Amino acid sequence: MKIKKDWKQKIHEVIYGTHTPAGRLFDIILLAVIVYSVIIVMLESIPSLDEKHHKFLNYSEWVVTILFSIEYILRIISINRPKKYIFSFFGIVDFLSTIPKYLSLFFVGSQYLTAFRILRLLRVFRILKLVRFVGESNNLVRSIHASRTKIFVFVFFIIIISVLLGTVMYIVEGPTHGFTSIPHSVYWTIVTLTTVGYGDISPETPLGQFIATVIMIIGYGVIAVPTGIVSAEYAAGLTNKKNIPPGRTCPDCGTEIMRIDAHYCRECGHRLSDD
Amino acid sequence: MKIKKDWKQKIHEVIYGTHTPAGRLFDIILLAVIVYSVIIVMLESIPSLDEKHHKFLNYSEWVVTILFSIEYILRIISINRPKKYIFSFFGIVDFLSTIPKYLSLFFVGSQYLTAFRILRLLRVFRILKLVRFVGESNNLVRSIHASRTKIFVFVFFIIIISVLLGTVMYIVEGPTHGFTSIPHSVYWTIVTLTTVGYGDISPETPLGQFIATVIMIIGYGVIAVPTGIVSAEYAAGLTNKKNIPPGRTCPDCGTEIMRIDAHYCRECGHRLSDD
Amino acid sequence: MKIKKDWKQKIHEVIYGTHTPAGRLFDIILLAVIVYSVIIVMLESIPSLDEKHHKFLNYSEWVVTILFSIEYILRIISINRPKKYIFSFFGIVDFLSTIPKYLSLFFVGSQYLTAFRILRLLRVFRILKLVRFVGESNNLVRSIHASRTKIFVFVFFIIIISVLLGTVMYIVEGPTHGFTSIPHSVYWTIVTLTTVGYGDISPETPLGQFIATVIMIIGYGVIAVPTGIVSAEYAAGLTNKKNIPPGRTCPDCGTEIMRIDAHYCRECGHRLSDD
Amino acid sequence: MKIKKDWKQKIHEVIYGTHTPAGRLFDIILLAVIVYSVIIVMLESIPSLDEKHHKFLNYSEWVVTILFSIEYILRIISINRPKKYIFSFFGIVDFLSTIPKYLSLFFVGSQYLTAFRILRLLRVFRILKLVRFVGESNNLVRSIHASRTKIFVFVFFIIIISVLLGTVMYIVEGPTHGFTSIPHSVYWTIVTLTTVGYGDISPETPLGQFIATVIMIIGYGVIAVPTGIVSAEYAAGLTNKKNIPPGRTCPDCGTEIMRIDAHYCRECGHRLSDD
Repeated sequence: MKIKKDWKQKIHEVIYGTHTPAGRLFDIILLAVIVYSVIIVMLESIPSLDEKHHKFLNYSEWVVTILFSIEYILRIISINRPKKYIFSFFGIVDFLSTIPKYLSLFFVGSQYLTAFRILRLLRVFRILKLVRFVGESNNLVRSIHASRTKIFVFVFFIIIISVLLGTVMYIVEGPTHGFTSIPHSVYWTIVTLTTVGYGDISPETPLGQFIATVIMIIGYGVIAVPTGIVSAEYAAGLTNKKNIPPGRTCPDCGTEIMRIDAHYCRECGHRLSDD
Repeated sequence: MKIKKDWKQKIHEVIYGTHTPAGRLFDIILLAVIVYSVIIVMLESIPSLDEKHHKFLNYSEWVVTILFSIEYILRIISINRPKKYIFSFFGIVDFLSTIPKYLSLFFVGSQYLTAFRILRLLRVFRILKLVRFVGESNNLVRSIHASRTKIFVFVFFIIIISVLLGTVMYIVEGPTHGFTSIPHSVYWTIVTLTTVGYGDISPETPLGQFIATVIMIIGYGVIAVPTGIVSAEYAAGLTNKKNIPPGRTCPDCGTEIMRIDAHYCRECGHRLSDD
Repeated sequence: MKIKKDWKQKIHEVIYGTHTPAGRLFDIILLAVIVYSVIIVMLESIPSLDEKHHKFLNYSEWVVTILFSIEYILRIISINRPKKYIFSFFGIVDFLSTIPKYLSLFFVGSQYLTAFRILRLLRVFRILKLVRFVGESNNLVRSIHASRTKIFVFVFFIIIISVLLGTVMYIVEGPTHGFTSIPHSVYWTIVTLTTVGYGDISPETPLGQFIATVIMIIGYGVIAVPTGIVSAEYAAGLTNKKNIPPGRTCPDCGTEIMRIDAHYCRECGHRLSDD
Repeated sequence: MKIKKDWKQKIHEVIYGTHTPAGRLFDIILLAVIVYSVIIVMLESIPSLDEKHHKFLNYSEWVVTILFSIEYILRIISINRPKKYIFSFFGIVDFLSTIPKYLSLFFVGSQYLTAFRILRLLRVFRILKLVRFVGESNNLVRSIHASRTKIFVFVFFIIIISVLLGTVMYIVEGPTHGFTSIPHSVYWTIVTLTTVGYGDISPETPLGQFIATVIMIIGYGVIAVPTGIVSAEYAAGLTNKKNIPPGRTCPDCGTEIMRIDAHYCRECGHRLSDD
């Protein structure tokens, strides 16, 4: 039994570990295979390429899919708590990376879903141990987290405004100018508000163009709001990090101590106690 | 008489209240019905769907409209000062949510205006008691409020610039290239300045394209201005929030105390109590 | 002679002054006439309207132009130093507001240039004495001023990048896909970099679309730069306004005084001298 | 030999120097010739102009190319360490500015690559000694540098999201609505996410339009992130600049002094001299 356990542990070390040379090599090969297979799926969807190289592309995909399937099974076998892995984010992604190709035997077209295996690339953060990034991004994540209620309410308002303005445009322009229904008009309104502006539909009556102008200027102002929120929260986080802790003063002269790591008062030279 | 008053009070509790289980249930059903009815109006505007399910859609709308009408009447009956409600924001919205359907009996197409009842959804803020959001958004509202003069002047400049550049483009490109009139050119200028860029009209002469390029770069720089204003005001608010207990004033001279840690009024030297 | 001087002074008071009721009335009428005349010019450019109401529109314009000409002459007569007015910003704008209509007698189409009289609307700032705005906008003007070198260099880089990428796209896509010349490709690059995206030209080869994708992502990142500069400068201005003057402390207890208008130390209540 | 050295030194002074009148004149002429030659290349690519003035344009280009070649050789001759120049940024740019024209004798079309000589314009910074700008832009460069990991990760996420959403759109819309392949769909997704929105492809099915709407709103929110990062870092730099005299350290223990108003080292309590 011990041999089997060792065997399991070794696989675990290679697949999950990032410290041993074998583990590192495995991770690098894995990333390369993921990128390769996503490119293959993309190329397969181009009719002219698929015609010429169908056999090669299809064969490549099957090889990668079978390799991923073996890896998936090994991951389950070599881990202590397989259930936790299976229902984790990466567990589900790994499963979804293999299944569409098998399904394509029964349902034509489902092989394109294998493009979802690009999500496996997110592993790169764990592999490269982007510690520095993670540390730096804490503030970013914190600011987005702090702004989430506001951004949710913001999206809620955008939807209400879009439905209202979309209805107005439907009544003003009507189906004869391409605004064939209210949902279609709402789609156009969001295309305009977000300054995307495809131009597949565009107002043709003077009144419609006037309203479009108002929508654009609203959209312009509205851009400022989420940007303002996130950057202000982010800036606040950046400032706080440096100024903490508020309210610590020199016991001798009363000067506010600005640096958390100060050992002496910068005004009178008094030795500060380490809280 | 007492019975009738009780009856009124109970209705008030259900319709306006959010504390009793019945009140909460009523609010949740109301929101669901609003969403349902807005979707129905939108679907009705799609010709292919309307043909197939016209009867069902029309019937649904009538049911919702009559329910809203009853609710509107009950709101007026059960409130102490009906006039205040009728002329409040929600009173007007509630009225406008029912009337277009009745008007559609006389004017074809007016039923689409019922999409305006999506504004009733704004009640969600009162219902869900989004206190946390309201607290957080005070700063957002305050920054938008503080920036309003600047944003107004900004829009004023945008309009002047658009009229000038629109006229120039009308002269340069002319009706043969789609710039059929000055208002149309001004519309195009705003489409370009806001980076929407439909492409329904686009400059075709080299000079026109050069001017368009200048407009785009202006538009690009101009994006920075409202974003900068709002985010800076917002950031300032975020910083201030930590220093100012809102509404604390000197009991002796009435000066607003700006620093939470102040012990003496900075105007008259009065000793401040520590709340 | 005294009578004539009084007459001159009265006209000066009405035309230039904003304190007397007559002066105010004149200004309000002036603004209304400017708006009216700009609208007339715009409407005249719409072929269908011009056909129907040509006489009325043309007549209106002539009346306004003659009124503006009289006003212009009166402004010159009633001022002490006419030269200074004539070569001032508003002097030139006032002159250019009247001349195109007279030129239209000789050159067809020049009457559209009268739309430039919209610049006269800028007078509104002087008339309404938007003191509050002016005060508030000082910081905005200051931040734009402080960022001008950086924004100039930024535009310089944008132009160099656009020429380079435009040339690449011309070589890659070529005249057969709409990139008819390098200037045209540069125009397309700026349309893409600024996220306007008309779609009058768009890449059709896979390589062209790949490069377009890179340009878009650059454009996306590039949006951040001027916004970041202006909003940071603006925020710095906002902060400075409140924290000045750095280094002022209470002579009694050494507390830093945060408010420029403080008369007493907030820590010990010591009377502060007024610098 | 001395004469030859003097001759070399004189050329060095004219070509590289910016202090002598001759050096300044050379630089100004150089910039003018660069701008002139880039314009010539651009004009040559316009078929109608090239037909009429082909001889003049071609001749102009040859003259400029030969002048640049001579200048390039003189630069190599007159410098002390030619290798360092040849492999420096400007050395490579100078070389690439001349070579495409010679290549055009063998490969038609390669003359357009001479447009790359616009990169030579970057010399303007050295010539004009934009010291003030350089000083001011340090903070800008620093903030972009400080944000680089975050921006890299951001672009990485954008690519993953684009591949995922592009695949979804390919499956939803399919080749019949213009989404001919997955790479093409990914291209469309980036066009939409960055709010460029050409409209060469646009969703036509209701579900496709719904997903497009979601992509746009994501794109809208996503705009906030890089803007927020850069402007916050920039603002932080702006604030720090005021507190920190760069390079001031405690003479006793070497700790960097962060506060311009510090009188004692916060690490060892050493009395700091007042510069």
